Formats: sequence, structure tokens, C-alpha cells
Amino acid sequence: MPRVYLAGPDVFLPDPLAFAEKKKDLCRTYGFEGVFPLDAVLDLAGLSPREAGLRIAHGNEELIRSAELVIAQVTPFRGPSADVGTAYEMGFARALGLPVFAYTNDAQEFSARTKAFSAGFRTRADGSLEDADHLQIESFELADNLMLVGGVADSGGHLAVRAAVREERYTDLVGFEECLKAASRLFGPATKST
Amino acid sequence: MPRVYLAGPDVFLPDPLAFAEKKKDLCRTYGFEGVFPLDAVLDLAGLSPREAGLRIAHGNEELIRSAELVIAQVTPFRGPSADVGTAYEMGFARALGLPVFAYTNDAQEFSARTKAFSAGFRTRADGSLEDADHLQIESFELADNLMLVGGVADSGGHLAVRAAVREERYTDLVGFEECLKAASRLFGPATKST
Repeated sequence: MPRVYLAGPDVFLPDPLAFAEKKKDLCRTYGFEGVFPLDAVLDLAGLSPREAGLRIAHGNEELIRSAELVIAQVTPFRGPSADVGTAYEMGFARALGLPVFAYTNDAQEFSARTKAFSAGFRTRADGSLEDADHLQIESFELADNLMLVGGVADSGGHLAVRAAVREERYTDLVGFEECLKAASRLFGPATKST
Repeated sequence: MPRVYLAGPDVFLPDPLAFAEKKKDLCRTYGFEGVFPLDAVLDLAGLSPREAGLRIAHGNEELIRSAELVIAQVTPFRGPSADVGTAYEMGFARALGLPVFAYTNDAQEFSARTKAFSAGFRTRADGSLEDADHLQIESFELADNLMLVGGVADSGGHLAVRAAVREERYTDLVGFEECLKAASRLFGPATKST
């Protein structure tokens, strides 16, 4: 079965391993093997927090190298955009030539979300908007920063956009399943390896 | 001269091309050719905003493929972390095997910054912290998410961390120059190509 790296802020959930199992079960339904960031076998004993962090980062890169595709959760995370670790992993997978799929549980368009986040935004002389730091608010009618959306599109992946209820903002899996369906079309009928 | 892709939210500054010229001048001083995202020659006439955004994303990927290294501005952007487009580009460059350098003009440690951002964070039973969405606040004593810092370290790059004054938060170039110095050591004495 093709291995799908499960990128996203899921690792920060209260019970990440239980959530990972839910995702892996869904993956199997569609003929994929889910690979969760916490699956990396790492010996962190005796390491400083900094050394442990770097070891984890390296382990995640190795897991992506071992995968055939990525499905990333890009629900906005502590600000108007996705988690930066997830964004990094999407770019990493894209440069390796992997198809990158993504889902967000926030259906608001990126520039509207950024305006809502940025108190004190104003209109520039050229009609574009800028925030209180005088940084332009991009307005391409996309779900997030253009690199993320463009990477998914260029790679042959699919972006699922869905408005989940607030309490299930990070755990709703309808968009994730939409990505699995699209991936199973791309990878063809599931070939069960024994 | 080795081409260095200049990643960062610099494209959102009020006069991005003037800022790009400052960076390119510094690059030349250290034997590098600076490549700015807006250098991509793109015909966006007649495109919808969405189509234009995707075209720009593809152009940026091509520019990174044409470069030998990346220097990314990872100063926190609309939240506790770097700009996600920049994070994507760092991962992209890393997977291509390029050395990735980065600088931030915010010297606060990532978990402290995330706590300051996250109203209503609390301590879990295991002693770790979580925010109001019940998402853990990672604490690896790094400058940002571990993927960004790990990618720089693994690639042989350098991360410059510096506290700039508020008004020059996105334009201070001392950390950028520190990256150029580190890059010139990695790439050896500047070889002037004519």
C-alpha cells in the first residue's frame, strides 16, 4: 500500500496517538498506509530539549522521504495561516516530487481571515490592504498563502475546504477523507500488498 | 556567483523592490547573486486572482530550483511563527539539497512567544502547556517550530537570531548579513564569474 505522511498540527492534540489511529484506519479503507510524525523511532534519552527538537525534525524528514504522498491538515493554527511545520513539510514533499493533498476545516477565504486577525489594517494608495506593520495583505482569493495552495495544485494533489464546527476544528475528518478519495483516484484502485 | 533565493515576507513591504535591491547589494558584497521572488518574469494579464496566485507560486518554485542556497527571513509574521510561504520554501529548498540559512529579528524563544500569543493557555496533567484550543505548546527551546530550525541545521545552514527595534522588525538586515557571512564560509572565497 502507498505510504501517506500525515502532516499537520495533530501532534499537538491532547491524545495524538488515538487521533493518528483514526486517520490510519481511514487510510486503510482507501488502500493507503498512514504514517504519523510520532511513528519515527527516536532515542531522545539524555538529549537537551534543543537536541531532541532537532532529532524529531530529522526523523520527520526521513518519514516523508519514505512516503509516496502527503495529506496535510492546514486548518489555521495560532493565526490566519496553517502551522509552519506543516507548511515546511508540504514544500519538502513537493520538491521530492510527491503529490501533496491538504484539507482545512476553516472555509473563510485567506484575505478575509487575515483582515479579521489584523487590527488596524488600512488601504494603501494603490488600493491594496496593509496591516498595522505596513505589510500587505495578499488577496488572491485562495484558502491560504499562495505557496501552499500552489504547491498542492502543481503536485497533482487536492485541497479540501470545509467549515467544521468550532469544537471539531482540528479533529473533523471529512476533508481528510475527501483527500483520501482524491488520492485513491490518483493512485488507481488499491493494490493490496501482502 | 552562487544564486541565493531571498525568501521571506519582504514581498509584502511597502516598497519591496527597493528592499530587494538593498539585499542584492549585500549579496554581491559577499560574492552572491540575490534572487528575489518578484524577479520571476510572469505574464499575469487576464488571469483571475486565483490563477495569478498559482502562477506566482510556480514561478517562485522555479526560482528556488535555479538557486544554490536560500536565505529566509523568519521574523514572526501575524502570529508566533514565521510566514507559512517562507516555511514552505525552506522545506522545498531543503529537499532539493540546498543549504538553508535563516534570520529572525525577534530574539524571544518560541514557546515564550506562543504563550504570550495564546490567551488562556493552561498546564496539562503531564506538566506540558496547551492553548485554549487544547493544542500543546511545544517547548524545545528553539527560535521557532522544530521543522524550520531542524531544516536549517541539517542542511548545513545557519540561523541568525537578533532583537531588532520594533520599527525595523522586518527591515533590519544585521541577521541577514550574518547569514551571508556564514554562507560565504560554506561556499568558500567568492569566485567572481564574469
